[in-house]
Formats: sequence, structure tokens, C-alpha cells
Amino acid sequence: MYGLYNYGQLIADEGRTRAYAESLKRHVTSASVVVDIGTGTGIFALFAARLGARKVYAIEADDAIMFGRRIAAQNGLDGRVEFIQGLSTEVQLPEKADLIVSEIHGVLPAYQRSLVSIIDARDRFLNPGGCVIPRRETLWAALVEAAPLHQKIAGVWGKDVFGIDMTAVRPTAVNTWQKTRLCPPDLVTSPQCWAVLDYAVLESPHVRGGASWKIHEHRTAHGIGAWFDWEGADGVTFSNSPLSGERHIFGQAFFPWPEPLDLCQGDEVHVQLRSDAVGSEHVHGWETIVRGKDGGTKAAFHQSDFLGQIWSPEQLRKPNDGASVVRS
Amino acid sequence: MYGLYNYGQLIADEGRTRAYAESLKRHVTSASVVVDIGTGTGIFALFAARLGARKVYAIEADDAIMFGRRIAAQNGLDGRVEFIQGLSTEVQLPEKADLIVSEIHGVLPAYQRSLVSIIDARDRFLNPGGCVIPRRETLWAALVEAAPLHQKIAGVWGKDVFGIDMTAVRPTAVNTWQKTRLCPPDLVTSPQCWAVLDYAVLESPHVRGGASWKIHEHRTAHGIGAWFDWEGADGVTFSNSPLSGERHIFGQAFFPWPEPLDLCQGDEVHVQLRSDAVGSEHVHGWETIVRGKDGGTKAAFHQSDFLGQIWSPEQLRKPNDGASVVRS
Repeated sequence: MYGLYNYGQLIADEGRTRAYAESLKRHVTSASVVVDIGTGTGIFALFAARLGARKVYAIEADDAIMFGRRIAAQNGLDGRVEFIQGLSTEVQLPEKADLIVSEIHGVLPAYQRSLVSIIDARDRFLNPGGCVIPRRETLWAALVEAAPLHQKIAGVWGKDVFGIDMTAVRPTAVNTWQKTRLCPPDLVTSPQCWAVLDYAVLESPHVRGGASWKIHEHRTAHGIGAWFDWEGADGVTFSNSPLSGERHIFGQAFFPWPEPLDLCQGDEVHVQLRSDAVGSEHVHGWETIVRGKDGGTKAAFHQSDFLGQIWSPEQLRKPNDGASVVRS
Repeated sequence: MYGLYNYGQLIADEGRTRAYAESLKRHVTSASVVVDIGTGTGIFALFAARLGARKVYAIEADDAIMFGRRIAAQNGLDGRVEFIQGLSTEVQLPEKADLIVSEIHGVLPAYQRSLVSIIDARDRFLNPGGCVIPRRETLWAALVEAAPLHQKIAGVWGKDVFGIDMTAVRPTAVNTWQKTRLCPPDLVTSPQCWAVLDYAVLESPHVRGGASWKIHEHRTAHGIGAWFDWEGADGVTFSNSPLSGERHIFGQAFFPWPEPLDLCQGDEVHVQLRSDAVGSEHVHGWETIVRGKDGGTKAAFHQSDFLGQIWSPEQLRKPNDGASVVRS
């Protein structure tokens, strides 16, 4: 859940907000019934209403929905938008929709209940032939140099701090990932696509994919960077790639390796990434195998932010929202 | 509650961690019984044990306490430190302590239950003649220029966004404050002390104070900056002042005004600041009066982050932890 500051920052991301506005413009007619899931302070629902949609259902669990109602009233759109406070997965609507719009991202599209919610909304709310915004998100990865961030994640747990050896924490700490801001020189390899989320047909909220690179020059890498390209309609896109020249609020995800790796010419790096919907969260896994020119294994890491959680025995005994968590 | 990344960042703030280590060194003897409230991953408790304290009680509500136990075992200090998971205000100890140490700050010392917890621990756990680390924190304020941050807090709510008038949110948004990083040129006035927290005698968890400035040159200001100086023992200090040349993890607090103010030579600015312990939070208030050279009132603002919360009617009807919240 966000504060007003965060909602404001999202709206102020002009490239993002403009892409949604433009996508809605392509799809909304005076006959449209639109559903906005995770509407926040209501911006996309209000865009749709302003574009003349016959009816807009704006669903949001957070109390921020109150501001959506106020903005709607101030803009004379309250007759057209119905605000419903709750999780979209628990809401029933009285009619089918022609369009579902949502922006319930974190750094990556798979965040909290995002994919579960989009699939559910599409299957329960959408008319045959209706469409979903975004219609597609493409996930990218590259190996990256990120010495300062790796140090922040793992470094403090790798040493003696005024006489106390803190290394007991390090194996857990390197299983946490962070939002970051990558620049083109940070990329040790070219980006590769590891997954495509096509929301018209997406069946599973569990995202899995892989990427491989052959190393052409000696570089040190600290882990894996990941980001997404967004597409709302033909030619209406934005990109969170560090190579795109755009700068969006989402940043990129950095999945650290336990140790920096010196990659040599001829090395091959194979990465498997996954993001599993578990209860109200996504659990991320990242596996890495590095093979040297001679085919021998130089490194093999099996990491997960499940292993990076602080779980006490008591915490693990709590009922976990109906989901099953398997330490894999 | 923090993740490991945040705990690591706190420990990695060397000026802060060194000041605690040095203060403990001044106070801990082989006869000492020490209580560390909010021990996190245990660092100060472990420092005290390493310095030879007879017994250390390390209290922490978060599951991170598990790492404290592991680090203690790894360092052979687990016989000397007893980790207790819970809120210090709900814990009973079998003996009195000679020393209480805590770092349960946010940006400012008054954060969540911090002051309530320190006062309670001192009154219930401490031997007469015992001491508290920190022993004193001094709170400072200055008027500041902070156009980009003011824009982030309020700007997006002050305008038309692709055809939607968002101004209904602005009166709430300007009642939220943010962590920031001030530089010396951002200060429009010299800093003034507005409160001193002397933990040996502090009676109230509600912090209140004021400051006034006479303006000597024309400047635009966007609100009030606030920070603290820390003192653990004679000559053992650190400062979070933007003028100190030190850079600590805490940053400074920025309390925005509803609008930037053009301050002219001869203007007088009077500010009242308060931080009231309410339930499990501190609620901040900031009041500003600006008088012109002629004595007339140029501006008067009455702000509070209580007014900046997103409260739905349902939220306000929830039981609020025994505390009473009065909209003032």
C-alpha cells in the first residue's frame, strides 16, 4: 500500500501516464464499460470516463480510493465512475466489461497479487473480444556490474564490525534483491528476453524463463539485472530498459550473486529466473551456472528471496493465507 | 520493521556505529548489566558482551532477532547475551540494569514507539545511577529551499493531468513530510535548536518546541528542515546536520509548506514543531507564521501529518490501539 507521495510519483511519471492515457484513447468509445483494477487515486478510471466511457468500475483496496471519489466529483465524472473498495478478486460486477486497465506493478510486473488479479479480472469481468491494458509486457535480463549495491546488500555481513564477526547473516542477505537504477555501462552483457506476459492469453501467475550469454571480454559482474517493456496498443509503448534513454519510476531489479564473478572471454553464463505467486506475494528465484571455456563449472548458485526472508519458527507456524510455501 | 538490507545499512553507517561502540566502551565494565532495546540483529548487545558486560538483555520484536542469536553463537557470546523477542514495554527483566542502549530512530529520534520505549525502559529497568545511551539528542530546524522535493510532494496534485484536475488531493498532500538530503546551500536560515531530549530525565514522549528567524536577504523557501545531534558520552557525538560534513543514514526531515514562500529582508518567521506519541506512531505538527517588516501577517500555516493521512471513515472507526486521536 502506498502513501499519497507514492501515488503522486507514479502519476508524475509522464512517460508511463501518457502511455496509459494514449492506450485508453485508442480503445475507449461511448459504448465502453471499463474496469480499472488497483485504481489508487483513480487516474486511469477518470481518463476512461473523460474519454466518454459509458461506465467505469474503479476497484481499489486502499483508502486512497477516497481521493478518487473526490477527484471524480471535482471533475464532474462521478456519475460515470463507480468506486468499489476491495480486492478485485473479491468483487462481483453487475455487467461485463469491454476493457480492463491496471497498473499494479512493483519494480517488475509480477508483484504482490498483480498477475493473479489481472488473470482473474480478465476471466470473470471481460467480454469476449474485450481487451486488457497493458496487453503485453516483455521481461529482460542482463548480467550487470553493481559493486556499490552488492556491497550494500552483502558487504556489511561479510566482515568484522568493531570486533563482531557478522558472517552468520551473509548467506541469507545474498538471497535478497533490490530495486536499482542501472546505466548502460553497468551492463556486462546484452539484454535477453526471458519471458513475455501476453495478458490476453496468460494462464499462470507464475513467471519462468531463462537466458544465456557467451562472454566476449573480461568483466566482473555482481548479479543479474531485470526490467520490462510495456505495450498498451499498437505502437503505444514504454520501456524501463537502462538502454532506452527513458527513465521511469520503476527502476530495475538487481538479483545479486553471493560473490562477484570474474567472467572471462569464452565463459558461458546460464540463468534461470522465476517469480512464483505465493499467497499475497511473488517469490523470486534466480539460478546461475557459469561454465568456463573448457566446459568446467566455474560457479553455480541457487538463490531465492524465500531464502532471504527473516523467518522465525513462530512465523513459519502462522497460517499463511491458504498458500503453500515450499522451500525449494 | 526492517529487512536485512536496512539492518545492514544501519550497521554500515560507520559514524553512527562507531559512536555507539565508543559510548559503550566508556560505560561497560565486567560488572555491567546492559539492556539493548530494539536490538535488531544484535550489534550493540554484542558490543556490550564483547566489552565484558556480566549480562546483556537484547530485546527485539522483529524476527531479525534470530540473526542476533546466530551472530552471538558464532562469536562465542551467547552465554552472555539473552535475546528476548517482544516489545520492550511488554517485557519483564529479572534484575535491574546499569546501562540501557537503544537506536530505534527514524529520520528523527521520535519514531513509532521510540520515546515511549526509552522512558519506560529507563523507569522500569535502570538502577539508580545507571545511564542511557544516547544520553542526549538535540533537535534542530532551519528554513530550507527544496523546490524539487516540494514539487514531488505537492506539484502533481496542483495541476491538470491529461485533462483531469487533481487539485482535490493537494490540501492533504501538503500535510505529508518526507525524508530528504539537505546540502548547506539549501538552508535559507541558520539552524536553531527547537528541543533537547535528555534521556536521563525525559518525562514525556511528546516533543514540542519552536524557532524564530529574522530574514536578512530575499530567498524562496519551501518549508522546514529538521535533524538531530546525538551524544552518547562526553565528547562522543555524531551529527546529522547538513552543515556537519558527516553523512548519516538518517537524512533530514522536510516539512513542506502548502506553497513556496518568497521571504524578504525584515520578514520574521515563527515556527512551532511537535511530535506527539499516539498509539504506535508519532504524529507531527508544524505551524508557521510569517510577519512582514510592517508587522502584518504574510502567511500562516497550520499543518500536521495527521491531516496528511489517507483515512477512510471505516479506518477511523477501527479500534486505535487504546490511543485517542484528536484532530486539532
